[in-house]
Amino acid sequence: MRYFVTGCAGFIASHLVDRLLKLGHEVVGYDNFSTGFLQFLEHAKKSANFTLIKGDLLDIERLTKSLQADCQAVFHFAANADIKFGIKHPDKDLKQNTLATFNILEVMRQKKIQCIIFASTGSVYGEAEQIPTPENAMFPIQTSLYAASKVAAEALIQAYAEAFNIQAIIFRFVSVLGERYSHGHVFDFYKQLLNDPKKLRILGDGRQCKSYLYVQDCIDGILLALEKVNEKINIFNLGTDATCLVNDSIQCITEALQLSPDLHYSGGQRGWIGDNPFIYLDINKISKLGWKPKLNIQESVVRTVNYLKQNPWILGIRV
Amino acid sequence: MRYFVTGCAGFIASHLVDRLLKLGHEVVGYDNFSTGFLQFLEHAKKSANFTLIKGDLLDIERLTKSLQADCQAVFHFAANADIKFGIKHPDKDLKQNTLATFNILEVMRQKKIQCIIFASTGSVYGEAEQIPTPENAMFPIQTSLYAASKVAAEALIQAYAEAFNIQAIIFRFVSVLGERYSHGHVFDFYKQLLNDPKKLRILGDGRQCKSYLYVQDCIDGILLALEKVNEKINIFNLGTDATCLVNDSIQCITEALQLSPDLHYSGGQRGWIGDNPFIYLDINKISKLGWKPKLNIQESVVRTVNYLKQNPWILGIRV
Repeated sequence: MRYFVTGCAGFIASHLVDRLLKLGHEVVGYDNFSTGFLQFLEHAKKSANFTLIKGDLLDIERLTKSLQADCQAVFHFAANADIKFGIKHPDKDLKQNTLATFNILEVMRQKKIQCIIFASTGSVYGEAEQIPTPENAMFPIQTSLYAASKVAAEALIQAYAEAFNIQAIIFRFVSVLGERYSHGHVFDFYKQLLNDPKKLRILGDGRQCKSYLYVQDCIDGILLALEKVNEKINIFNLGTDATCLVNDSIQCITEALQLSPDLHYSGGQRGWIGDNPFIYLDINKISKLGWKPKLNIQESVVRTVNYLKQNPWILGIRV
Repeated sequence: MRYFVTGCAGFIASHLVDRLLKLGHEVVGYDNFSTGFLQFLEHAKKSANFTLIKGDLLDIERLTKSLQADCQAVFHFAANADIKFGIKHPDKDLKQNTLATFNILEVMRQKKIQCIIFASTGSVYGEAEQIPTPENAMFPIQTSLYAASKVAAEALIQAYAEAFNIQAIIFRFVSVLGERYSHGHVFDFYKQLLNDPKKLRILGDGRQCKSYLYVQDCIDGILLALEKVNEKINIFNLGTDATCLVNDSIQCITEALQLSPDLHYSGGQRGWIGDNPFIYLDINKISKLGWKPKLNIQESVVRTVNYLKQNPWILGIRV
């Protein structure tokens, strides 16, 4: 099979690329390198089955030239994932998530490519009343520009699926951890502790309850669903069957680093405006396909910290 | 109060403008006249409290100049409402509904205008499992580009409300009928019968079940909610506590016109791709505020037909 992967130099998508190549597929990767790293594609670049295209999804001309009709499916994983900075540049999520998705769908329609696999987010459930939250939870109210842009992208994908006979597989992820992790709270905490091992500033009260998934487990879930689904529109939560307080992950991180910093909380239930203090997804639907994460949250945090220790370049540190 | 009304020359918004002026408010109307009619503003234009601006919501410069900080609230009613033609021009809904809403929100944010009243649609529920469908029904799957663009607009409004302390009142309408009705199935049927009184072509099998609301009842509901709500984000269905088959409304129309045409069905459950064969909204939430529609579906259809009879210009007929 020949696949097109957007955001191929990003955290999750670069692992996906490696896996697809390992399985013997051809992969065309597309990335604007605004947040992706060429280093993540070191393995992939050695493969004759991999083609890398530097391009922006908002550059419709380049995208049209790059996404050829011989691709069987598009993994659309490119996104602006700076969730908590949405307020500072309200058009960023709209452009990089919603409009970028529209462009992909338009080119797919023109080229008659009939399958899209989309990386969405558990944030689309807003502050869910039902926890753990299933895929068919209550019609949500959005609390962040990031989640709003992902809901909009999901809706566009669904409407295109209905109108143009495209199969859609939408994954709503919890936070993903593991090798190549390059933004998020573990990253922020690690960076702080590197600068000052005695002090850690925490947004919110540390009691925000989240769920985390190891990146290889995430890829397993995606590929299993791709193999098994038959419906036109398929939506799956991807997470672990457990949660963890921000305070717990701090303990994990500081233990792994053998540090005991003073903790300074900014206070309040939410880390930032639009932060959901409790994200815990119901994973029964994907589990029924035979999927089970291999690593628990603590193991994922430790792997992430070890990766950051071994890759100081990712923190912007010259080596 | 001073209000800004987008799509002011449209069917529903022009009635809203009349009502706001009648209540003694000042109104700034904004319309690009792509589908609106200047004739709908005949009453409004006689009022010293009405200012009309010809402008497009995608023209951010003009919008920024037009929407002044002295407006207390924005009624955002402009939209592309050609639901069934979404497939022919997939970017139209995105631009005129989603991006136009983003532009309004951005200007509101800049000018610190803190209330938006938004005309959404019952179509956002997709093919709902729960009927009548309440506001907190199951997380829907979108079936049309039109509804996808409205879901996206709702999500943007909610995220802006959360981030920038804007109050949002979102109305999900069933189809609205009455004076100045200028597109939709009653319009299509009437136009067909005018051309050939003996034959009527119907999209689908005629058994699609819909709900309709009289335009003045719709305006009553909007203004009552505006007066009563206190929450930051408020969502209300607006419809009648009844449904009607497409076949029933055909009978209504033909009786009002004293015609008995042959009926030709295109067949299938849906009138077009993305048509929802059963739309019936739960109106308990708005009813609890003390709202009750005064006209039933049949009366609304008859008023609509009478309006079309008296206003042949709206069908593009020279008089």
